Amino acid sequence: MTSKLEFWFEYASSYSYPAAYAVGDACRAAGVELVWKPFLLGPIFASQGWNTSPFNLFPAKGRYMIRDLERICGKAGLPFKLGEAYDWPQFSVAAARIGLIGAREGWIESFTKRLYRLEFGDNFDISKEATLRQALDGVTDADRVIAESRRRETKDALRAQVDEAMSAGIFGAPTFRVGTEIFWGGDRLADALDWAVEHAEP
Amino acid sequence: MTSKLEFWFEYASSYSYPAAYAVGDACRAAGVELVWKPFLLGPIFASQGWNTSPFNLFPAKGRYMIRDLERICGKAGLPFKLGEAYDWPQFSVAAARIGLIGAREGWIESFTKRLYRLEFGDNFDISKEATLRQALDGVTDADRVIAESRRRETKDALRAQVDEAMSAGIFGAPTFRVGTEIFWGGDRLADALDWAVEHAEP
Repeated sequence: MTSKLEFWFEYASSYSYPAAYAVGDACRAAGVELVWKPFLLGPIFASQGWNTSPFNLFPAKGRYMIRDLERICGKAGLPFKLGEAYDWPQFSVAAARIGLIGAREGWIESFTKRLYRLEFGDNFDISKEATLRQALDGVTDADRVIAESRRRETKDALRAQVDEAMSAGIFGAPTFRVGTEIFWGGDRLADALDWAVEHAEP
Repeated sequence: MTSKLEFWFEYASSYSYPAAYAVGDACRAAGVELVWKPFLLGPIFASQGWNTSPFNLFPAKGRYMIRDLERICGKAGLPFKLGEAYDWPQFSVAAARIGLIGAREGWIESFTKRLYRLEFGDNFDISKEATLRQALDGVTDADRVIAESRRRETKDALRAQVDEAMSAGIFGAPTFRVGTEIFWGGDRLADALDWAVEHAEP
């Protein structure tokens, strides 16, 4: 019996941060294979007429998100604050391209946790190469990976990943996917895992 | 020590339906006082430029909502289907006015469960007086309550309730509120209850 869960997340997404810290341990405890799927929400939001995050477009939702993440991160022992030194959400394309390579090579969990911590704990700008290097340092060869992340093949692979998200009906992050079932929101991880276990393929 | 949880819900809201079935038992089990707060999302959506439900405005979200509610209701043993005989979401002002009276008089839980079941289980139109009477039948005096629901005082009270929701930062339904903390989404009931118990006032 194998059961598999895809974790669709966006490096600029605040709610993806505590989910990225929770999903690995939860899948290991449940015996469910985890597939990390970094993608971009920008093109998906744009397709529904949004030019920025819904947390900017709808202020009540934005205020709620900040308070909610203070609670969620507080419970998980993770620091959380939104930076004031840059526009929010951050520009996450470079991070996502590196994430794609990390997913293929098996070091994405360490890189992702470190990058989110820099972004939402310490308010580093993740569009800067120095920040990406700091998250890669000690995880893998930063020079090699950054060079590879800028190749045409990596850019195309990220575009294909976003297309796959759209085809799967994904409209927000984080989203867990098991087969064709999607579960939107970090608070649905347990439901997604239950589904994965109950619908394991022989 | 008293702890109190407000349940803000909208009679047209699909996600409010399973939450209305869960919240009473959950609060009784936790020893938390429950305050039912029916309100309207229409004016809140309008204030952020939406003229209908986000599930209509954003098709991927709408498709997800239907599948997600099939799962949630399936787990809770509740029937769920969206009607095809009317535009969705339904017109819920008359129901909300009755709900306000039921909250004051103590019969709102029975009325609300019955009305949601008629709406999302059997696809009755809740803007019709016959449907409202069917939900009130055996719960309280339908003639008296329907007459009272049409009085100026009741209409004003509902407007005030919507204003209170906006002031509290509520932007969707269901929302649980404990003091000034809000928790959006039926899947956050356990978090809201934990908060209520941990922050009980002496």
